[in-house]
Amino acid sequence: MNPALHFVQLYEDYQGTDCQQRSFSRGEFLTRSCEIERHIYVILKGGVRAFYVSDKEEFTIRFGYKDSIINSLASFVSQQPSDLYLQALRSTEVKMIPRAPYFDFVHSSFEILKMHNELMTGVVVSQLERELDLLTTSPLGRYERVLERSPQLFQEIPLKYIASYLRMTPETLSRLRSS
Amino acid sequence: MNPALHFVQLYEDYQGTDCQQRSFSRGEFLTRSCEIERHIYVILKGGVRAFYVSDKEEFTIRFGYKDSIINSLASFVSQQPSDLYLQALRSTEVKMIPRAPYFDFVHSSFEILKMHNELMTGVVVSQLERELDLLTTSPLGRYERVLERSPQLFQEIPLKYIASYLRMTPETLSRLRSS
Repeated sequence: MNPALHFVQLYEDYQGTDCQQRSFSRGEFLTRSCEIERHIYVILKGGVRAFYVSDKEEFTIRFGYKDSIINSLASFVSQQPSDLYLQALRSTEVKMIPRAPYFDFVHSSFEILKMHNELMTGVVVSQLERELDLLTTSPLGRYERVLERSPQLFQEIPLKYIASYLRMTPETLSRLRSS
Repeated sequence: MNPALHFVQLYEDYQGTDCQQRSFSRGEFLTRSCEIERHIYVILKGGVRAFYVSDKEEFTIRFGYKDSIINSLASFVSQQPSDLYLQALRSTEVKMIPRAPYFDFVHSSFEILKMHNELMTGVVVSQLERELDLLTTSPLGRYERVLERSPQLFQEIPLKYIASYLRMTPETLSRLRSS
């Protein structure tokens, strides 16, 4: 079990009850830009992408897979409107963890807080990797960095969204994949 | 006192001794790419930039000012070689906090760990802002986002490095500044 999922398991044990579940059909939004993010989503089935819109163009910035966690984190933390959209890529089922009980749990013991601190540190490191991806000049370089870090991506996510994530056209990505 | 600096003050109180200090002259490196980051740097005087090199081009990704904290965080956490260079922008004095006593301190009490967890959460949120900066299509949009968030930048950092940070030419940045 990955550390984030283990953390959710401990959350449910602490609450003594399972989280609320919800289904989203393909294309449906878990969170919209300008809404306030009130949940953490644990993906039981399906897939989700987070994207940002600038000058009417969509930039895919994160993917959520089965057994991973996603939300619009800055909005969840600050309770300011989200900059991001979260959208189901296919029929998707999630567990939803609301904010207040989540933070009560985070602060429920030293060990839990330590785990959360390590999870947040891991997020910082992976976000820095992502920033360096974006600054890597050559499309091949960006592709290779991400392929090494997240091979799962290419099994689960439609090519057009991976191309958006890598800031290249689907045609360029197809060419890199086949060469 | 900002939260990060307050945290350092508590670290020194806990150690019962002041941190080691070191001076760097302009252009000197605090950390080089491929080195392992062993310290956190607290800037007492001067300024520092962090940059990443891709295809021989330098991309400035962070700035450290007086009374702020900087290091190559991913390397500091993982003890893998740094992707980044940290370089003094002018004559700079720093306090240096080594890794092992730093983490001992982070785990020294629930309250300290809670503060650290909040600091890391703040880093996550600011890194996401930075990612959206990079994806904002128009140079004016990128400039305005950063001006609103970090007006201090334009007081302290040479224009050519701000331009690199904003992914535009110094000429474009000058034009946006004067219009």
